[in-house]
Amino acid sequence: MVSGTREKKTGKIRLGMVGGGQGAFIGAVHRLAARMDDEYEFVAGALSADPAKAKASGRDLGLAPDRIYSSYEDMAKAEAKRPDGIEVVSIVTPNHVHVPAAKAFINAGIHVICDKPLALSLKEARSLEALLARRKDVIFALTHNYSGYPMIRHAKAMVKSGELGEIRVVQGEYPQDWLTTALEKTGQKQAAWRTDPKRSGAGGCVGDIGTHTYQLLCDVSGLAGEELAADLTSFVKGRVLDDNAHVMLRFKGGAKGMIWASQVAPGNENGLKIRIYGTKGGLEWKQEDPNYLWFTPFGEPKRLITRGGAGSGGEAGRVTRVPPGHPEGYLEGFANLYTEAARAIRAARTGKKADKEVTFPGIADGVAGMAFIEACVKSSRANGKWTKL
Amino acid sequence: MVSGTREKKTGKIRLGMVGGGQGAFIGAVHRLAARMDDEYEFVAGALSADPAKAKASGRDLGLAPDRIYSSYEDMAKAEAKRPDGIEVVSIVTPNHVHVPAAKAFINAGIHVICDKPLALSLKEARSLEALLARRKDVIFALTHNYSGYPMIRHAKAMVKSGELGEIRVVQGEYPQDWLTTALEKTGQKQAAWRTDPKRSGAGGCVGDIGTHTYQLLCDVSGLAGEELAADLTSFVKGRVLDDNAHVMLRFKGGAKGMIWASQVAPGNENGLKIRIYGTKGGLEWKQEDPNYLWFTPFGEPKRLITRGGAGSGGEAGRVTRVPPGHPEGYLEGFANLYTEAARAIRAARTGKKADKEVTFPGIADGVAGMAFIEACVKSSRANGKWTKL
Amino acid sequence: MVSGTREKKTGKIRLGMVGGGQGAFIGAVHRLAARMDDEYEFVAGALSADPAKAKASGRDLGLAPDRIYSSYEDMAKAEAKRPDGIEVVSIVTPNHVHVPAAKAFINAGIHVICDKPLALSLKEARSLEALLARRKDVIFALTHNYSGYPMIRHAKAMVKSGELGEIRVVQGEYPQDWLTTALEKTGQKQAAWRTDPKRSGAGGCVGDIGTHTYQLLCDVSGLAGEELAADLTSFVKGRVLDDNAHVMLRFKGGAKGMIWASQVAPGNENGLKIRIYGTKGGLEWKQEDPNYLWFTPFGEPKRLITRGGAGSGGEAGRVTRVPPGHPEGYLEGFANLYTEAARAIRAARTGKKADKEVTFPGIADGVAGMAFIEACVKSSRANGKWTKL
Amino acid sequence: MVSGTREKKTGKIRLGMVGGGQGAFIGAVHRLAARMDDEYEFVAGALSADPAKAKASGRDLGLAPDRIYSSYEDMAKAEAKRPDGIEVVSIVTPNHVHVPAAKAFINAGIHVICDKPLALSLKEARSLEALLARRKDVIFALTHNYSGYPMIRHAKAMVKSGELGEIRVVQGEYPQDWLTTALEKTGQKQAAWRTDPKRSGAGGCVGDIGTHTYQLLCDVSGLAGEELAADLTSFVKGRVLDDNAHVMLRFKGGAKGMIWASQVAPGNENGLKIRIYGTKGGLEWKQEDPNYLWFTPFGEPKRLITRGGAGSGGEAGRVTRVPPGHPEGYLEGFANLYTEAARAIRAARTGKKADKEVTFPGIADGVAGMAFIEACVKSSRANGKWTKL
Repeated sequence: MVSGTREKKTGKIRLGMVGGGQGAFIGAVHRLAARMDDEYEFVAGALSADPAKAKASGRDLGLAPDRIYSSYEDMAKAEAKRPDGIEVVSIVTPNHVHVPAAKAFINAGIHVICDKPLALSLKEARSLEALLARRKDVIFALTHNYSGYPMIRHAKAMVKSGELGEIRVVQGEYPQDWLTTALEKTGQKQAAWRTDPKRSGAGGCVGDIGTHTYQLLCDVSGLAGEELAADLTSFVKGRVLDDNAHVMLRFKGGAKGMIWASQVAPGNENGLKIRIYGTKGGLEWKQEDPNYLWFTPFGEPKRLITRGGAGSGGEAGRVTRVPPGHPEGYLEGFANLYTEAARAIRAARTGKKADKEVTFPGIADGVAGMAFIEACVKSSRANGKWTKL
Repeated sequence: MVSGTREKKTGKIRLGMVGGGQGAFIGAVHRLAARMDDEYEFVAGALSADPAKAKASGRDLGLAPDRIYSSYEDMAKAEAKRPDGIEVVSIVTPNHVHVPAAKAFINAGIHVICDKPLALSLKEARSLEALLARRKDVIFALTHNYSGYPMIRHAKAMVKSGELGEIRVVQGEYPQDWLTTALEKTGQKQAAWRTDPKRSGAGGCVGDIGTHTYQLLCDVSGLAGEELAADLTSFVKGRVLDDNAHVMLRFKGGAKGMIWASQVAPGNENGLKIRIYGTKGGLEWKQEDPNYLWFTPFGEPKRLITRGGAGSGGEAGRVTRVPPGHPEGYLEGFANLYTEAARAIRAARTGKKADKEVTFPGIADGVAGMAFIEACVKSSRANGKWTKL
Repeated sequence: MVSGTREKKTGKIRLGMVGGGQGAFIGAVHRLAARMDDEYEFVAGALSADPAKAKASGRDLGLAPDRIYSSYEDMAKAEAKRPDGIEVVSIVTPNHVHVPAAKAFINAGIHVICDKPLALSLKEARSLEALLARRKDVIFALTHNYSGYPMIRHAKAMVKSGELGEIRVVQGEYPQDWLTTALEKTGQKQAAWRTDPKRSGAGGCVGDIGTHTYQLLCDVSGLAGEELAADLTSFVKGRVLDDNAHVMLRFKGGAKGMIWASQVAPGNENGLKIRIYGTKGGLEWKQEDPNYLWFTPFGEPKRLITRGGAGSGGEAGRVTRVPPGHPEGYLEGFANLYTEAARAIRAARTGKKADKEVTFPGIADGVAGMAFIEACVKSSRANGKWTKL
Repeated sequence: MVSGTREKKTGKIRLGMVGGGQGAFIGAVHRLAARMDDEYEFVAGALSADPAKAKASGRDLGLAPDRIYSSYEDMAKAEAKRPDGIEVVSIVTPNHVHVPAAKAFINAGIHVICDKPLALSLKEARSLEALLARRKDVIFALTHNYSGYPMIRHAKAMVKSGELGEIRVVQGEYPQDWLTTALEKTGQKQAAWRTDPKRSGAGGCVGDIGTHTYQLLCDVSGLAGEELAADLTSFVKGRVLDDNAHVMLRFKGGAKGMIWASQVAPGNENGLKIRIYGTKGGLEWKQEDPNYLWFTPFGEPKRLITRGGAGSGGEAGRVTRVPPGHPEGYLEGFANLYTEAARAIRAARTGKKADKEVTFPGIADGVAGMAFIEACVKSSRANGKWTKL
C-alpha cells in the first residue's frame, strides 16, 4: 500500500528554528524534512548565538532581516507578538540548549519540534514534562526520527496486533565507527560537542545513539523498561564520555533485552538494528536497509515485507510516498515526523486533536530516554548493578 | 565525502508543469524532487487537458488562478509574456505529449525538464533534437533519474578514470512484476497508458524500463551502442505491447552486453541492476539498494563502496546530502537531476554555461533511447536480426 | 525436513576411475563425493595415460598394484573379468576422452559416472546414446552436479506441482573471472585444456559452464529448448574458444530465456544463478549460497525457503544431511549424485529399477548439452541466427 | 589459496566411537567428518549403552561383531589389548558421559576426540585436565567444530598479525528457534537431553551454544576472559535450564564483549555470528554463510574475503578443499578438526609433535568453556554480579 506523495501548498505552517546555522549538520536535515511534503514555510530563526553568524546564516536561507535573531528568548517573545509569527519552532542545537529553549517557546504558546536526546539530565527533562503537563495546548515532538520509517510503523502494528505473540526477547544494536580515533581533537565540530559532557550530558555514545536504540525497541515492541545493567567504556584515550556501551535490559512483564551501542566499531557506518522475538514469531529490521522488514512466523519460512509491497499494511502506507522497489531513506523517515507533527498542528489550529493514527515521539520518549541514560551511567559506575529505569 | 544538504532560498527558479494533476503519480515525484533542495518555486501548471480537473488540481497545489491552464500551448504563450513567467517547465504526461509540449515551451524560450522515454518515435525525437540544435539558449533535461544516484556518479567516474581497464562486458536487467496479470483491464491508470501504443509508442516494457537500463549502461560505461538483437514478447493475453524483452548488444569498440527487462517476473519490484566488467575490474550496482557499489579489482577481494563513505569520491560527494549509513533513495536521486538542472539554469540566467561537473541526461540520451526502442522492435519483428542503433 | 546422514558400510559398491591422477582437480572431488555417504569403495584406476604417473597416483591412493592401469581399455577388460571387478567407473578426464572411455566400460557391462560436458561433438554424444539404448542394463550418470543440491530438488518439485503456474521466463547466468587474463599461457593445467578445442570441443565457456546453466534451467523448469540465438566472444587475445557467451532461448510451449556465461567477469567466482518466473510465482537460486531458495507467490511477500527448514519438502529432504542453518555446500551436492547413482546400482544388482524418486542427470542431459553447445557455436557463426536445438 | 582435497588411503587411522547409535544425530556427523579426507577407518564402537541397540547399530555400520561393545569400559580394555585396536575414539554421547568415557580411553593410552561441552561441571573438567597433564602421550581434541572453518582460520591469522590493531570490542551471538515451544515434552530426543540438567549440566542454551560462541570469540580474538555478568532465562514454561542467555564480558587487557545465545528466537536456525573490532579494523563472520569474511580496515571500504579467493591466506588455504565460489559448509568445517587431529595422531605414531600449523580445540578450550558456563549460572543467580572466569 502506498499513499503517494503528499502536498499541501495552501495554509502552510509557519516554522522557526533555533540552531542550525552555517556549518551545522542536523539543522539542514530538519529544514529539508520540513520541506519534503510542503507543509511548512521557514520564516524565522535564531540560527546561532553568535549575532554575525546568525545574520549571515539567516540571509543565506532567505529569512527576512527582522526575523533573524541571535537569542531564542528574543525570538520567542518577538514571534509570539507577530500576527504572522511562527506556529512551531525546531530546536536543533547541542543538547544543553534543548530544554531552556523549549521552555521559552512553550511559554510563548509556540509548538516545539526538538532534537534528541531531550536534555542534559533526567531532572531537567522532568521539569519540561511538568511544564507541558500545564500547557496541553502546545504540541511537543521529539525527533527520534527512526520511528518515522514506514517499516517501523508496520513492525509496531504487527506486534500490537499480536502477530508475534507475547514478546520475550528484544535485541538492539547501533554500531558506528566515526569516533574510532580521537576525532574530537582535530576540531571536527560534531565530534567535539558530542564528547563534551557540558554540551552532551552524562552519556556519550549511550546518549547519542543508545537512546535511539532504546526508544525504537520500546516503540516497536510496546514494552516498558524496568531495570538495566550497563558497562560503559571510553576506549579512546582522553575521551571523557563513553564511546561503547553494553546494556542488559529487563522489561515490565518479563521480556529481556540487550543493547550494544558503539562509536568505535570499524566497518559500521550507522548500523542501527532491532530484532524482536515473541512466542509466535520474530521481526528484524536494519536502518541502513530500511525498506525491508523480515518476519518469520514460527515454523514457517522467513518473509521479506517491503515498504509499499505485499504484506505491508495501512500504518506503513500512510507514511509511504513511492511504490515498492523505489527506495525511501533517512530523509523520508525524518520527514514523516514533520508531516505527522503538521497534522497535529493543523488540528490544533482549530482546537482539535489529530486523528488517532497520527503518531510521533514526544515528551514521554524524551523522559524515558533521559532515564535510560542516567540508569546506564549509574549502573556502570556501580559496576553493572541492576538499576531501575 | 558528503557535500551536505543544499539550500538556496534566494532567487528560486520559477517552475511550471504540464501533466501531473489529480491521480497522477510521477508529477508529484517531480514536484517533490524540485522542492528537495529548495531551488524551485512551483507557480504555474497545465496539470490536465480536462479544464475542470486542471483547475481543481492547480487549486490543491496552491497555484494562482490565473496561472492554471488546461492547454500547454496557452500556458507556454501566456507564461512567456509575463515578467514573472516560468523559467522552466516539467513535462510529466504520457509519452505522446512529450515532444509537442516540449516544442511549445522551447519555442517560447522556456527551459524544459521532460520525463522519459522522450517521444513516440525516433523520428519525432529527431525533430526535437533539430529544434534544440537551433535553440542553444534553451536547456533540456530528460529525467533518466537513475543517473542521479551518487553511486552511479561514482561508478561512471571509476570507469572514466580507467579503474576497470577496457570494458568488455556489460549486463543490465530491469525486472518488475506489476503487469504479471492484465492489470490494464482493471482500470488502473498507469497500466492502461503504458500498454497502449497510442500513448506509449512502439515499446511497452522495452520503452518504459528497457530504455532506463540502456541509458544507464551507456552512461556509466561510456560505451555507445552499435547494434542489437532483440526478442520481445507479450506474455499476457490480449496485451499489444511487449511485457518482456531479451536483448543482446554490441557496442562500438567491441564490448558486448545483454539487457533483460520484464514486467511479468513475480518477486521483482523495481529491480534495475547493472554490471560492468573490464580487463582490470568489475562493478555491480542495484537500484533497490542504491547506496552500495560493489567493486572488484581483478585478483583482489571485492569491496563495498558506500555513498558518502570511504572510497566514494567527489563526483558522488557533490550529489550526496547525508552521511554514510543514512540511506538516500529514489527521491534524492531524482532530486539530483533537478538540482543539476538548476545549476545550469542559474548559469544560463547570466548567459553562462554551467560548471563542467554539472551533468544530467538530455536530448542525446532521449534520441539514443528512441533509437534503442525502435531497433528492439525492428529486430524482434525480423526474428532477432542484428539491427543498427 | 532432514533425512540425516546416510551410511551403509555393508555391501559397498566397487568403484574405479579413469583420469584424476596427481595434479588433477575434479578427480579428487569425485572420490570425496563417492566417500561422503560411504556407499562406494575405490578399488581400481587408470588415473593417467602416463604409466609412471598412473602408478604413482594409484599407490598414493592405496590401490592394489594389479588394479592400477594406464589404459582404460585394459582396465575395462581386466576388471570385467575379475569376480571382484569394479561395478562402476568414474570418468574424470578432459572432454575428448569421455565417450571413448565410456563406451569401453559400457561394452564391458560396467556402469558409468561421467563428467560433463559429455562429448567433443553432438555426433559423438549421439553414438553413445545409441549404445546405451542397446545396453539398458548399464547405468549412465552425468555429473551435472548442481542438480544435486537439495534446494534445486525443491525448486523442481515446486515447478512440477504447479506452484509457479505456467512458466514464462527463465534467466540463467554463470559468471566467473578466472580467465580474465591469458592464464592458459602460464602453464596452468585447468586453463590449458579448457581453452583447447582438441580437448574441450567447440565450446569454451559455453561448453564448460554454459552447459551447466542450460541443464539446470531445463531440469528445474521442466522446459525443453526449441531454438536459440547466440553471440560468443573470445575477449582474451589469442584465445581460440569463447570466454563469454550471450544466448537468447525459446522453449517448446512458448517460454523464453537468456543465458549469460562468462569467464572474464572480474568479481565473480562461480556465480551460477537461475531464476524462473511463471504466471503464479517466481523462484531464485544462487549456487554460491545454495542453502537458500527464494520464492515469491505473485502478490505476496517474498519467502526464504532454507535447506532442511520450514517449507522445504521431501524431495530436498531425502538429499539433506544436516539440519537447517548448518550449511551444506558443493561437495554435498556432488555427493548426492553419487548416492543417487548408488541407489540405482544397488537396485540393478538384483535386476530392479531404482525407486521413482531416485533421479540424476544422464545421457539425455548429455545429448541436450552437446546440442546446446553446437547450436550456440552455429548460431554465433551465423551472426546470431535462431538455430534449432 | 586452495590446498585441494586431501586423501591418504595408506595407513588409515583406526577409529572407534562411544555413542552415536541408531537415532542419534551428531555421531553420524562425526563419522562423515572422519571419512571426508579418508584419514580414518571406523572399526569399533560402543554405540549405545543398550546392548541390543548397540549390536544393531554396529551391524548397520559394518562393524565386526567382536568389536561391537555396549560399555565403553569394556571397549577401552579390549581395544587396548588388540594389536589392531583403535588408536582414537570419538565420544559423541550426551554431556554427562564425556569425562568418564574419556578417562577410560586415556588411561588405556587411546587418543580421544570428544564432543562439547566438555563436562557436567568445571570440577569434572579440571579432573580430566589433570589426567591429561600426566598422560602427555595422549591427544585430546574437543569438537568446537566452528573453529575448523577456513575463514575462521583466516580471521584468527589476521588478528594475530595485527591487522585489526588492539582489540577493543567483540560481539558474539548464537540465536536459534528450535526450542520456542516445549519440544522436549513431545519426545524429541535432542530436545529432551539438552533441557535435562542431569545429562546437560547446569547450562542449557548457554552450555549448548553459548560455549561455542565464547570459544570462537576467544579463539579468533586471542583474548582470554576475565569476568562476566549474565542474565539467564527459561522462557518456556516448565523448562528447568536456560533457553536464552545475555552475557556481558570483560577480557584480560581491557577488551569488552557481549554474547547473546537463544533457542527461542523465531526466524533463526543456527545463527552463530562473531564480530571483532580493534583500533585498526573490524571483522565479521556468520556461520550460516561461512565462506565469507568481512574485513574493514578503518577508513577504507569494507572487503569481502572469500574462502579460497583473493586475500585469503595460507592458514585458511590448508583447510580448504575446493576453489572459491564452490561453497564449503558445516561438514567440511567439522572434517577439518578430524583431519587436523589425524595429523597430530600420525605424528604421535612416531613419537613426534605435529607441525606447528596443526591446530584444533583441546582440553584448555573445554575447561574454559566449563568455567564460562559456571560463571554464567553463578552470575545469573547472583542477579548479574560480575563473576570471575
